[in-house]
Amino acid sequence: MIAGIGDDCAILRIPVNHQMLVTTDFSLEGVHFRREWHPPQSVGHRCLARGLSDIAAMGGEPVAGFLSLAVPPKLPQRWVDRFLRGLLGLANEFKVTLAGGDTSESPNGILADIVVVGSVPKGAAILRSGARPGDRIYVTGELGASAATLDLLRSQPKKELRPKDFPSHFFPIPRIRVGRTLRQGRLASSMIDISDGLSSDLSHICEESGVGAEIRENAVPRASIGNPAREVGPKAALHGGEDYELLFTSSKPIPSRIAGVLITDIGSITRKREIALVGSSGPQKLRPGGWEHFRS
Amino acid sequence: MIAGIGDDCAILRIPVNHQMLVTTDFSLEGVHFRREWHPPQSVGHRCLARGLSDIAAMGGEPVAGFLSLAVPPKLPQRWVDRFLRGLLGLANEFKVTLAGGDTSESPNGILADIVVVGSVPKGAAILRSGARPGDRIYVTGELGASAATLDLLRSQPKKELRPKDFPSHFFPIPRIRVGRTLRQGRLASSMIDISDGLSSDLSHICEESGVGAEIRENAVPRASIGNPAREVGPKAALHGGEDYELLFTSSKPIPSRIAGVLITDIGSITRKREIALVGSSGPQKLRPGGWEHFRS
Repeated sequence: MIAGIGDDCAILRIPVNHQMLVTTDFSLEGVHFRREWHPPQSVGHRCLARGLSDIAAMGGEPVAGFLSLAVPPKLPQRWVDRFLRGLLGLANEFKVTLAGGDTSESPNGILADIVVVGSVPKGAAILRSGARPGDRIYVTGELGASAATLDLLRSQPKKELRPKDFPSHFFPIPRIRVGRTLRQGRLASSMIDISDGLSSDLSHICEESGVGAEIRENAVPRASIGNPAREVGPKAALHGGEDYELLFTSSKPIPSRIAGVLITDIGSITRKREIALVGSSGPQKLRPGGWEHFRS
Repeated sequence: MIAGIGDDCAILRIPVNHQMLVTTDFSLEGVHFRREWHPPQSVGHRCLARGLSDIAAMGGEPVAGFLSLAVPPKLPQRWVDRFLRGLLGLANEFKVTLAGGDTSESPNGILADIVVVGSVPKGAAILRSGARPGDRIYVTGELGASAATLDLLRSQPKKELRPKDFPSHFFPIPRIRVGRTLRQGRLASSMIDISDGLSSDLSHICEESGVGAEIRENAVPRASIGNPAREVGPKAALHGGEDYELLFTSSKPIPSRIAGVLITDIGSITRKREIALVGSSGPQKLRPGGWEHFRS
């Protein structure tokens, strides 16, 4: 499917009757990761995971990745090697070829930009704009692990966390297989990945579809993190970003697991153009949480 | 040809029997430009020109651009507006849609990464690997203007240069039309764009094709810069980067102008795997000049 690596451009062959998907995401030191918090393998893994998650959110098949990487002159080569090991490990898992990119010296800090190209049969991409009143709203997996892990890192900056106790933050798995199954079965009316937080990403679906939503607070599946594992708070689950789970809507019966991943019904799409959170004390307005990574 | 802007991915339709081209290039403050030297329009123009020039070097048609842009919190919005004006002006000229990208806060300096997607009829891309002994070697336009302009900026850092007196540096025109004509007429056996300098880029052609080359020093067309205009030195023409002219090889008759652009025969491809520069004092080895932008 790919040729021309090392030439002025990479050449990709897209299957007949398929459309191409393209997404691009920054991973900047001090904005999306910190060297003292994130092992290089995790930075590389998360860099590619961000792009793959966007492909998953369209129901697409990933084809190729392009990495632009700028590093300060004094960065040990070992850091780059481990970063690439993390990135290529995830690439292999999803049969994505690293087909090109750019390298440069960076005047300040490590800068990565990942482009992922995917494909989808013509007209089959699952858009944000297809949600209709009466559709149920679903999420994959459990929410809030990544934001709660960042809270821990922020509050105990000297303490190293063991990545294997916090896998959703350090090594999130993009939901490519779930997205594919939903697309193949024409099960979802709209979809987005939860990169900015449930409240923000649901508001994108509602805006693009011209609808509103009602979420049951106690239905939102909360992640557990650490060892011993503790459940995250409701704020992390509702507003925390970088979980890379999928949020989708459907008018069809949806199984409780797809491709081994938990699927949870958290509410429904409404005609009234606002998002209501129904808790024990009645409904209140859910405003987008405005996830902004961490500040340096 | 493009849908899905504002969704998780952009969706591109590639024409039947076409392949896709993808290229990605950084434009980093302090590495590829300086705010005190380069007006924002020039930075935006050059950012996209780098990607378009890679498409031109394959004989491709540009389709869409994706801009990842990170700026420091204190950067005036006016700078970004002018940057985009420069980038979109060039995009319009070549009918390229800005179809997506990413934005972020930057901890240090302005960071841009441009992705350009293009298309080319199946099998028609002009690669670096097709040069054969006996082929003539050609360049478009004149060389060295960009490097010589940078030399001036470096030596007189306080003096502002008027961009219109140094258009090849501040507003280079990617040679899309020349690349297209060469591809449509099957005129070129190999091609590359001169982004690293003639000596470096010719060495890429020779390596990928498994051949050598002989260049006549006085045949290399030297640019003139400034007002009044002065011809650049031989070093800038042989080794200077960022001219974004095309270097190609051919065994066929080539007109002296293509799409209005001067085409110059500068030498020939040889069997012996080295690059010889033939000057008034006889032949000498031409080594890649190792263009590395400027150091911050």
